[in-house]
Amino acid sequence: MAKNDSLSDFLASAVDAAKRAGEIILKGFYETKHVEHKGTVDLVTETDKACEDLIFNHLKQLYPTHKFIGEETTAAFGVVELTDEPTWIVDPLDGTTNFVHGFPFVCVSIGLTIGKVPTVGVVYNPIMNELFTGIRGKGAFLNGNPIKVSSQTELVKSLLATEAGTKRDKPTLDSTMNRINILLAKVRSLRMTGSCALNLCGIACGRLDLCYELGFGGPWDVAGGAVIVTEAGGLVYDPSGKNFDITAQRVAASNPHLKDAFVEALQQPE
Amino acid sequence: MAKNDSLSDFLASAVDAAKRAGEIILKGFYETKHVEHKGTVDLVTETDKACEDLIFNHLKQLYPTHKFIGEETTAAFGVVELTDEPTWIVDPLDGTTNFVHGFPFVCVSIGLTIGKVPTVGVVYNPIMNELFTGIRGKGAFLNGNPIKVSSQTELVKSLLATEAGTKRDKPTLDSTMNRINILLAKVRSLRMTGSCALNLCGIACGRLDLCYELGFGGPWDVAGGAVIVTEAGGLVYDPSGKNFDITAQRVAASNPHLKDAFVEALQQPE
Repeated sequence: MAKNDSLSDFLASAVDAAKRAGEIILKGFYETKHVEHKGTVDLVTETDKACEDLIFNHLKQLYPTHKFIGEETTAAFGVVELTDEPTWIVDPLDGTTNFVHGFPFVCVSIGLTIGKVPTVGVVYNPIMNELFTGIRGKGAFLNGNPIKVSSQTELVKSLLATEAGTKRDKPTLDSTMNRINILLAKVRSLRMTGSCALNLCGIACGRLDLCYELGFGGPWDVAGGAVIVTEAGGLVYDPSGKNFDITAQRVAASNPHLKDAFVEALQQPE
Repeated sequence: MAKNDSLSDFLASAVDAAKRAGEIILKGFYETKHVEHKGTVDLVTETDKACEDLIFNHLKQLYPTHKFIGEETTAAFGVVELTDEPTWIVDPLDGTTNFVHGFPFVCVSIGLTIGKVPTVGVVYNPIMNELFTGIRGKGAFLNGNPIKVSSQTELVKSLLATEAGTKRDKPTLDSTMNRINILLAKVRSLRMTGSCALNLCGIACGRLDLCYELGFGGPWDVAGGAVIVTEAGGLVYDPSGKNFDITAQRVAASNPHLKDAFVEALQQPE
């Protein structure tokens, strides 16, 4: 397991699956959607389920001994246990709110961990036709072209991305907005795209300098993007500055120059 | 003046100019940029200036008696006087921060007012190849296909767009974040794209349900988008609920169903 050539095979299989799922997403994006609710502001669609089935079936057939964690499946059964086994971690449709509204930041995210380490990553936005890929030790690419993180060294010139999250209780909202307020005084500007995986890819290709998110859905939001950022020369870490934990629902990313200043700016009185 | 066929001619000329400017933007988007500063977080680029020159030269040659207001020119001379004369109001590159960082929400915005009323609008995003157009009384289009605003009737299911603005003093930031905090408790989610003109077009094509912005640069940010929203069946208004004033640097937009609830949600203690 984990020979270089087999990692390339894994990537090719994941790209295959992502492209097929992307066709379903692209079709649904321009149609009326049948929407179910998962809470007030979270949405799940038929497309979401169809894409997860397609990706799981495709990869399980090729790699029957591998483990699988998916947003739809795992959310339904409630338990996320990540082992050292090769594990495919799949968000079949990141940015479901965008999908429902027709806002073009939607993607398929597929990550493979081996020994719990993100090793292969694919993030595909079929609306904008952008395919981000990465293999541990082999670089990161956008539509086949090498990408790298920005060279920015100053917070005040940095473009930050984060999300408003899905929780709407007052303590969470106050904490979220207070953190953003403090950060806005220190950075150039703020973007909210509605896709955690695409924010990570934005860091990887240098469109964004800083991103963080707290309390997102699960490891499927970050498993694909994490290896892409790292292979593009960036760092993925806990917003506290500690090591990134793929199961912790907390992530920050930037180039190496900005990490210390960003972590310091993120530490506010709660 | 203002016969239907001449409005179509005006639109065609504006589309021509926008597409030519878009080629310059597209080229610059993928290159290293030479950046000057207009304050801490606002940026102006060589591309910005080249695009405004190109658009003004193109339209002045065709319509030598018309008036012209442009972000670069007018900002340099400091005065915006809008008369009843046919007036081209141009933002050669809306989303300059995005342009500098390579974030794909950038556009050319061209609006024509006649009797101070937005009458022809063109907003062109060359990166995503999206051309939004509108003529008063003749509908709104995206790449030639008719568009309309969303049919959403509930704030809680609405996708909101706004911007963090460019001012970083504490009273402005506190007010901005407090307003967003209150709104977030009432809507589905929030997007920040960095382009006021593209937010308006997002309303026009139903990707977004609600948008507002206070204290943006000038009429060039809204002149093109305003007619596109209106012709897509939407409303453009002052965030107070009063009539839209193109020179006031305040704008809100939505479909007609959402206006009253949105205006109420926007009225907070400052």
